[in-house]
Order: sequence, then C-alpha cells, then structure tokens
Amino acid sequence: MGIGDDAACWHSDASIQLATSDALIQDVHFTLNTTTWRELGWKALAANLSDIAAMGGLPQYALVSLGLPGDTEVESITELYQGMVELTHLFDVAIVGGDVVAAPIVVLSLALVGTAQTGHIMTRSAAAPGERIVVTGFLGASGAGLVMLQSGLEFDKETATSLREAHLKPNPRVVEGQTLARHGVRAAIDLSDGLVSDLVQLCKASGVGARLFVDQIPVHPLVYHSFGDDATNLALSGGEDYELLFTASTEVISQVRESMPCPITVIGEIVEEEPGRMRLFDKHGNEATLEKKGWEHFAPRKR
Amino acid sequence: MGIGDDAACWHSDASIQLATSDALIQDVHFTLNTTTWRELGWKALAANLSDIAAMGGLPQYALVSLGLPGDTEVESITELYQGMVELTHLFDVAIVGGDVVAAPIVVLSLALVGTAQTGHIMTRSAAAPGERIVVTGFLGASGAGLVMLQSGLEFDKETATSLREAHLKPNPRVVEGQTLARHGVRAAIDLSDGLVSDLVQLCKASGVGARLFVDQIPVHPLVYHSFGDDATNLALSGGEDYELLFTASTEVISQVRESMPCPITVIGEIVEEEPGRMRLFDKHGNEATLEKKGWEHFAPRKR
Repeated sequence: MGIGDDAACWHSDASIQLATSDALIQDVHFTLNTTTWRELGWKALAANLSDIAAMGGLPQYALVSLGLPGDTEVESITELYQGMVELTHLFDVAIVGGDVVAAPIVVLSLALVGTAQTGHIMTRSAAAPGERIVVTGFLGASGAGLVMLQSGLEFDKETATSLREAHLKPNPRVVEGQTLARHGVRAAIDLSDGLVSDLVQLCKASGVGARLFVDQIPVHPLVYHSFGDDATNLALSGGEDYELLFTASTEVISQVRESMPCPITVIGEIVEEEPGRMRLFDKHGNEATLEKKGWEHFAPRKR
Repeated sequence: MGIGDDAACWHSDASIQLATSDALIQDVHFTLNTTTWRELGWKALAANLSDIAAMGGLPQYALVSLGLPGDTEVESITELYQGMVELTHLFDVAIVGGDVVAAPIVVLSLALVGTAQTGHIMTRSAAAPGERIVVTGFLGASGAGLVMLQSGLEFDKETATSLREAHLKPNPRVVEGQTLARHGVRAAIDLSDGLVSDLVQLCKASGVGARLFVDQIPVHPLVYHSFGDDATNLALSGGEDYELLFTASTEVISQVRESMPCPITVIGEIVEEEPGRMRLFDKHGNEATLEKKGWEHFAPRKR
C-alpha cells in the first residue's frame, strides 16, 4: 500500500525478515560545511543498505525519520530525498514511511527492512578457524576522503572527486552480499568502523582470533598515490569503506570469485585464539604492530 | 537471532508485514524537566505500538536508535530502556537492534515492525458514507496532563497522577485494534494529533465528510472534574490520547462491542461530503463551531 497510513504495509513471501536502523546527527556524523544534502541522503541510506548486504539480504523497504531546524530550505529537503531516491532506484528499494519533525539540528534516522532465504544468512558469529579472511573492493579511500575534507588538503581534481565520492557516496555491496550468501559463505560483516575494528568484532562474535597480512590488504590506489606512508593506516582504520569482509574456505572462495561483480582479496586467516585477538604480519612474515598514531588519528567517529 | 549482527533477523509466517517509525526530539516533543527517562521510553514505544494497533496489526520487533549527549548518566539510559521493556513485556515485542550515537540533545528514534492477517488490515482510506464514527476509551486526559505539566496547575494527588500517566504513559490499544480488524472493521486511525485533526485526516484519505456529535464524545471524567468548560476542547484537540477511532456499520459495532476489552462510543457518522469536511453538532442538533481558542491553544505540537 502507498504512504499515508499509520504504518507501512506490504506482502511478503520470504520467511526470513531483516531489519536495521541508523541515526546520523549533524556535527557528530556529518557537517553541512562539507556534505551536500544529496550526499547526506545517499550516505545515510547506503550505510543501512550495507548492513543488510552484510547479512546477504535483499533490502526492500525504508522508513525515513527526519529532524529538521525550522529554517531548513524546502530545496534542501528535496535534495536529501533525491540522494536517497538515487540509491533506492539502484537497488529497487521503496521508501514506505517515516516522519518529519522539528529539531534544533539535522537528525536523519533510517530504518531498512529486507528479506533473506532460509539457510542463506551471513552472521558475525560463524567464522571458523582455518577459514581465509577476504575483503571486497579496495580500502582506505573513504577515510582518505574524510581527512581531505576535514584538513582542506588539495589534490588534482580527479583524485579529489574520487576521494570525496568514496567518503560521501559509498556503494553498498548489496549484490555482492547476496552472491556470497548464495555460494555458502556464512560469516561476514561490513566495514563501517574500519578493517581492524570490524574484524575484531567479527572475531569476538565468532570466538576466534585472526592473522592479518598487512601487505596483502587491497589499499585503494588513489590512497597510495595521495597519502603515501599513511595509506596502509587509512586502509586498516579509516572506516566507512562499506566493503564486505567475509571468511570462507579456499574452495568456497574460488567458486565465489567467478560470480562476484567486484574484486575480492584474501588478506588473512581465522585461527583458534583468544576471541578477538588479532595479529598483524608484514611481507617478511614478521609480526607488525598497529601504529597507535594512525589508529587514534583516524579512529572511527561513531561507536 | 539475538542482537549483535549488522541487521536484526527473524522468521515470519505471516504474509503481511507492517512497519512504522517515529522520532522524538528533546525540547520539541518532550522535556526532561517534566518527563522521567522511564516515561520517555514508555511513551516513545507506545506511540509506535499505537500506529501498528491502528492498522489492526500484531507488533513484534522494535529497533531503537538513541542520540545522547556525552554527559548522560548510564542510569538514565537504563531507565529509558526499562520504560520500553515494561511495554515490550505487555505486548510480547522484542527489541532486536538499533544503535546509540553521540548527539548534543536527546534523540529517540524507534522503528517497529509487525504483521497482520491478509484481509484483516484497517486503513485510513476505507471509511464509507453511512458508517458510524466510534472511539475507544475516554478522551482529553493526555492533553489535560500536558497542560497541567506545562502550566504547573495543582490538583489533588490522585487526579495529578492520573493526568500525568495519561500523558506520559499512554496505553496503546493493540489488543483492541486486532479485535476490530478481526470483526471486519476496515477504517481506523489512532488519536495522536487530536480527535478533530485525526478524524479530518481519515476523512480526507477516504474521500468523505463527517458529522460529529459533541455531547456524545466520551470526555475523560477527570478532565471534566479538573478543567470544567475546557474539557470538551481538550477531548476534541488535546492529542496524544492514543485511543483508536474507527468507522463501521451499526451491525459490526454491536458485534465488536461484545468482544472489546474497553468501552467504545459512537460519536458521529460518515457522510458524503467534500473530503475532509467535518461538521460539529451540539446536543440540540444545532451546528456548533470549534472554538478557535481551544483549538489553537491545545494544538498538537507535532505534525
């Protein structure tokens, strides 16, 4: 049914339902100084889509709760919705409800509902020792974009545009998540807080440890190009890349690789260890330490 | 599955899914000067439950997004959740996810998912000429409670407690909504903005008009007792009573009456008219006008 009733309402044939929600607060999660309304709308929905993607689900219906100051231009609200609608078209999602209320700052709270097939759900708690750790795409560009926007660093136009888009218009791996789940991948998480932080979360939930091979991490080429020595730290801790991290056997990985619409890279392995313990190794096989400076500096802003 | 994954996840046998969301902003929708954290939690969830109730649905899963200032006491957050948990126990709802983020003011955004049986959904758009207009329970006590809290009016302890509870701990008509839907009622709305405002909404959505018999409105006895001449205005426009307003034939109403766990009262009838046009009649059958003073004074704070 269309919008206008007390609740949104739809028929569903699937037996598994998924739901996620996220709130973005002005000057905590974004600033309108560097973010356009359209980008804000895109990013807010992308973050929720990524949560459904990490479970291997099919996103379907979004509820949008907006808190807006009284002096917000109608045009701004239109742009905000356009940013969301661009993404809903890409993934065939319908905005089915929500509300708009007065607020002293901009508050954007989204809830997203989806479905999945029985037996084809990925969770954080299913990683098993012996499995390889794999990521989709390239890492670090979102964190690099944030640093660029916050510090006013200047790059050539193409680099600047790409880093900005990586941070403000991330592409949630919805199709990829469903592909993984269909091929029997059972453990996954999306990279919102940062590779290290999210991998530790997955390991804790699964009661396992991890070895991470730092030189195998697919750092985004533009991040190497523009941030040099800091590039690896941005890939490890920058956050908000919204790539998927998953674990699987080598057999499953080679089957998955054929079907994935994006590159995937093995970056480590799951081991029997103190839950959540992660050890990094350099290209010589020596244990590396996570540079505290990088980690703190680029620490995720959201918990 | 339990909390801890990227999205909440559950099995569902029902074919109709319902979802609603609501955001409450500090000093717009509530003030912590007069509202306890526990009451805030209760009321936020009650408002969402009432939306599902208005559709005749069974509420099942809630997502709670909290924005909190850094100096919020842990105890306050515990109380907030206790307020919600009290209600989840009453209605067998599970809080399955959400997030907590930093914010300069308290922001409470809830999404609630539920189910309904095919063919047993109530909407705002199904009211038909000839049907009677009916409300559950008694009206005006929530608005009276708000006026009392805002103006510092003093009443005897029992009255003060009842009016406060009516405003801050409303009882969503979940069981009643399902009973109505099961008995064939097709048009309903919950009274959140106020009787007049919500009835006009229902009439607009249904393309009909309404006649309201003011002397038949079940004004809450305590509101008569404590607000005298203003009582009827509070019942007409006070808002946030979270009773259900529905329309049905006299036959359906008499069948429903037997099964309802609360009183129901016929207060008017649906007529063929300019959509949304509502006329009020006094006990002598003369057309009455809505006192602008009362209407404006007690206008709903939320749109």
